[in-house]
Amino acid sequence: MTSPEQDSLDELSAAIRTFAAERNWEPFHTPKNLVMALSVEASELVEIFQWLTPEQAANVMDNPEVGEHVREEVADVFAYLLGVCGVLGIDLAQALRDKLVKNALKYPTPKPLA
Amino acid sequence: MTSPEQDSLDELSAAIRTFAAERNWEPFHTPKNLVMALSVEASELVEIFQWLTPEQAANVMDNPEVGEHVREEVADVFAYLLGVCGVLGIDLAQALRDKLVKNALKYPTPKPLA
Amino acid sequence: MTSPEQDSLDELSAAIRTFAAERNWEPFHTPKNLVMALSVEASELVEIFQWLTPEQAANVMDNPEVGEHVREEVADVFAYLLGVCGVLGIDLAQALRDKLVKNALKYPTPKPLA
Amino acid sequence: MTSPEQDSLDELSAAIRTFAAERNWEPFHTPKNLVMALSVEASELVEIFQWLTPEQAANVMDNPEVGEHVREEVADVFAYLLGVCGVLGIDLAQALRDKLVKNALKYPTPKPLA
Repeated sequence: MTSPEQDSLDELSAAIRTFAAERNWEPFHTPKNLVMALSVEASELVEIFQWLTPEQAANVMDNPEVGEHVREEVADVFAYLLGVCGVLGIDLAQALRDKLVKNALKYPTPKPLA
Repeated sequence: MTSPEQDSLDELSAAIRTFAAERNWEPFHTPKNLVMALSVEASELVEIFQWLTPEQAANVMDNPEVGEHVREEVADVFAYLLGVCGVLGIDLAQALRDKLVKNALKYPTPKPLA
Repeated sequence: MTSPEQDSLDELSAAIRTFAAERNWEPFHTPKNLVMALSVEASELVEIFQWLTPEQAANVMDNPEVGEHVREEVADVFAYLLGVCGVLGIDLAQALRDKLVKNALKYPTPKPLA
Repeated sequence: MTSPEQDSLDELSAAIRTFAAERNWEPFHTPKNLVMALSVEASELVEIFQWLTPEQAANVMDNPEVGEHVREEVADVFAYLLGVCGVLGIDLAQALRDKLVKNALKYPTPKPLA
């Protein structure tokens, strides 16, 4: 049985895969190339923020043009993340849930005072 | 009305947000810092692949230890991507669907021969 | 006494610093912003190579236009690397020599057969 | 005739090349792999700064341990930058001088008031 979020991530992942297949991009979409592209898109997101003060960065979505740019770069990162998981056969939602369990052990919550 | 995939991405996003709140990490999780962390995690994924041949990269999940490392880095990228969208109020699934529409115009599919 | 390579790196570093000062960019050139910009430029270099086969990547300088693009991105990485060292007071040549000594201990050369 | 800074960058570049050759790393040091490694090292530098406030980032060298970490990551970026230039036959100092000329046209200095 698959979980609901996996179903829907599968839908988005399938859309990505179809998009690449229709354009004959599959030979280029090797794991090595896709992780490179993922990191490049992450940097394009960083580029938007690099000269902003923390205050300007916090209000970046208030500017419609810059906000749309941020949305596009976030989408590009997500597209390549789904692409990487697609070619490597990784269940992204399950990987995140597993990592949260691992991180919860690594970073325990502060103990409440008795 | 929210779409099913948004519901489930919302669940994962809420889990990320709760995880950070329980550890009092919110003051650090500014947009600027989170996009930096996202790009750093993307590079940690790249690091696994950087010295591999294309063939080795294609078979990276066959090694249980390396495969688990890849799953963890992919999860970290996803966690920060959801974190960025959380603090900026971005609907990640909708951003991806919008970008696919835009990309479909930018990169038309090859015309079939008549 | 400064070493010859430090003298010349100092010259290039001074040129970078003057360039920024003449444009009143100094308030933006904080350490945090400059390391972000450095990583963004490194990714712009990666972007040129991401869809190339290893063979195409090895011959990338044979194409004058692409080769010039590579030279420009390499220069941008160097400019921000010198910028980072400038604001942090790091002697780049000495940092590299120190790191090579450390790496030589970490990665000993294969022992010659007797 | 080579310029003084090129002579010394050549020395550092030759040290990098010898270091790799002595360890039989040359087959791994393809252009594609080296640009990946360069971007990964740039991100390791970013990682040091990602949760720091601008003030903490500005004082990062005051902490001897963190300062040494910064020097090491800066050195790693420089090592791979020289490595990339080495395999691609790029004169790094000349590339930077050419880029500064180009940037000076792109970003003219503010005109002084008459």
